[in-house]
Amino acid sequence: MSPSDDGNAAYGKKRFKRSRSHFADRITADGRDGWPVEAGRYRLVVSRACPWANRTMISRRLLGLEDAVSLAITDPIQDDRSWRFTLDPDDRDPVLGIKYLSEAYDARETGYPGGVSVPAVVDVPSGKLVTNDFQQITLDFATEWTALHREGAPDLYPEARRDEIDTVMEGIYRDVNNGVYRSGFATGQEEYETAVRGLFRRLDEVTERLVGQRYLVGDTLTEADIRLFTTLVRFDPVYHGHFKCNLWKITENPVLWGYVRDLYQTPGFGDTVDFDHIKRHYYQVHTGVNPSGIVPVGPDLSQWLTPHGREALGGRPFGDGTPPGPVPRGEEVPATGRPPVPAG
Amino acid sequence: MSPSDDGNAAYGKKRFKRSRSHFADRITADGRDGWPVEAGRYRLVVSRACPWANRTMISRRLLGLEDAVSLAITDPIQDDRSWRFTLDPDDRDPVLGIKYLSEAYDARETGYPGGVSVPAVVDVPSGKLVTNDFQQITLDFATEWTALHREGAPDLYPEARRDEIDTVMEGIYRDVNNGVYRSGFATGQEEYETAVRGLFRRLDEVTERLVGQRYLVGDTLTEADIRLFTTLVRFDPVYHGHFKCNLWKITENPVLWGYVRDLYQTPGFGDTVDFDHIKRHYYQVHTGVNPSGIVPVGPDLSQWLTPHGREALGGRPFGDGTPPGPVPRGEEVPATGRPPVPAG
Repeated sequence: MSPSDDGNAAYGKKRFKRSRSHFADRITADGRDGWPVEAGRYRLVVSRACPWANRTMISRRLLGLEDAVSLAITDPIQDDRSWRFTLDPDDRDPVLGIKYLSEAYDARETGYPGGVSVPAVVDVPSGKLVTNDFQQITLDFATEWTALHREGAPDLYPEARRDEIDTVMEGIYRDVNNGVYRSGFATGQEEYETAVRGLFRRLDEVTERLVGQRYLVGDTLTEADIRLFTTLVRFDPVYHGHFKCNLWKITENPVLWGYVRDLYQTPGFGDTVDFDHIKRHYYQVHTGVNPSGIVPVGPDLSQWLTPHGREALGGRPFGDGTPPGPVPRGEEVPATGRPPVPAG
Repeated sequence: MSPSDDGNAAYGKKRFKRSRSHFADRITADGRDGWPVEAGRYRLVVSRACPWANRTMISRRLLGLEDAVSLAITDPIQDDRSWRFTLDPDDRDPVLGIKYLSEAYDARETGYPGGVSVPAVVDVPSGKLVTNDFQQITLDFATEWTALHREGAPDLYPEARRDEIDTVMEGIYRDVNNGVYRSGFATGQEEYETAVRGLFRRLDEVTERLVGQRYLVGDTLTEADIRLFTTLVRFDPVYHGHFKCNLWKITENPVLWGYVRDLYQTPGFGDTVDFDHIKRHYYQVHTGVNPSGIVPVGPDLSQWLTPHGREALGGRPFGDGTPPGPVPRGEEVPATGRPPVPAG
């Protein structure tokens, strides 16, 4: 995962600390880092398990960048060489021609000693990693890639709201997105309790905000919603049990449960989520937390597609824009990763 | 725990299997095994963490055997010599004078190679273990100790209902009481899934039974309710996460959540339950399941004392009898183990 892989390496003797992205070049409209926005040039490498990578998949869908930036999906289970393309024929990414994401890292910097993480954007012609900066990639999709956005793409990072969005995202990042990891990878009781109490305090605060408004900032979907969603959708299936974030389940909080289902059912969100990849990754990779590697059968996912009632709060999900079209062929989440469709 | 201790020893390479009790002498009215019912002669050794021991504590309370059979409470955390009396002054049981329960086992049989388990009944004069037969002790409390029952004690194993009680308890034992352990100690995915699906199938069946009637068999409390309760009360705090019994929480099942709160609030049930002992035992002792030894802060226990509405189903909890009196001095569950009293 990101920015360094969060496998067992992270579950060491020391306090869990997420390192900064090492490769932070930006792909921009003016190409000032040497990487200009260009259709067909870059490949986005993700794991469907990873919340940080999930951001980029949602953003790409909402903005209609699917044709401009192609997508490579790794196996949810890393091996000792990290993320690998074992879901593809011949265990090789058909565009980059590599078996391991680390090969793109090596192409960029020989002998880089850090972890291999997703999301990663790779320059297809050279095979080199451009960036694994999970905090920046989606912001650049929203603001630098505008020339390639679909017609009707929403503004996910509106200038007039950036201060508020940044503030909301900062708290969510520290206490929620990263808070679940600090809780789950804590090696001492006090470290764990600090993390988990901070997490639920922040969830309480977010709940207050979402009681009367449909989205986190303004009345449209923004980057802030994407970032909260990717943690909330994994919460009951993984973080509640595996990471001991168990004061309550999201299903027990009517506001957040309505909110996360609303987003899940919005085109571009739920159609990127593979619950099977998510559960297998965490439970099988973190043998330091779950030595047996057994993947729980729960929770029951049968309510994810039920009515959430959040439309009553108003809001214009896409602002003056429109929802994205169908998922591109070949990128559909398999049935094994989707909740059952309610009967009747 | 019982019948062999369920610490890490049970979490081995082989399929989890609960062994039969080795010491199965019975204390009876006629004393045919050499152990006659006698007030003040025997000491019941329990851990408040253990569901099998919890049965005996509830039964003793409901029947009013507190004066006849004294109670020794072990530390919820075993060490390499198993259950110990480190909650007592000088780390020694004040009546038996021993530091480890294993000393009573040794007094009974030198070099017994099996596990040391609770509940255990010890003969005070000789210091010898009489029985650790967790399936029989409570039945004998109900049927052999009648001369020492309090006035108004309920009939927990009524003759006319025994067939039905035995049938109900058999399914609950296999799939629920023991099912949670088979789920949590499974070493392979298939073994786990078989256990957890059998568990939830049985919980569904029990739910059906309890929709329209207040107790499992007849309209009064019986041994069957005691045995279901001791697993249900531990379900959300431990089995849901630690043992991966996570299709749903008991709080998400209105029937079972009403039922378990009804019992919890009935004198003799909740006043034996220490949530702190329960959580610390499982999460700290089973390092094979939870290597960090961290004890989760959740779940939120604030709803355990709220109205459950089950009185509307009728039922006469104690039949023609009465509820037990207050908890004997010195046996009260400390505040750390009790849910918060609801405000207002």
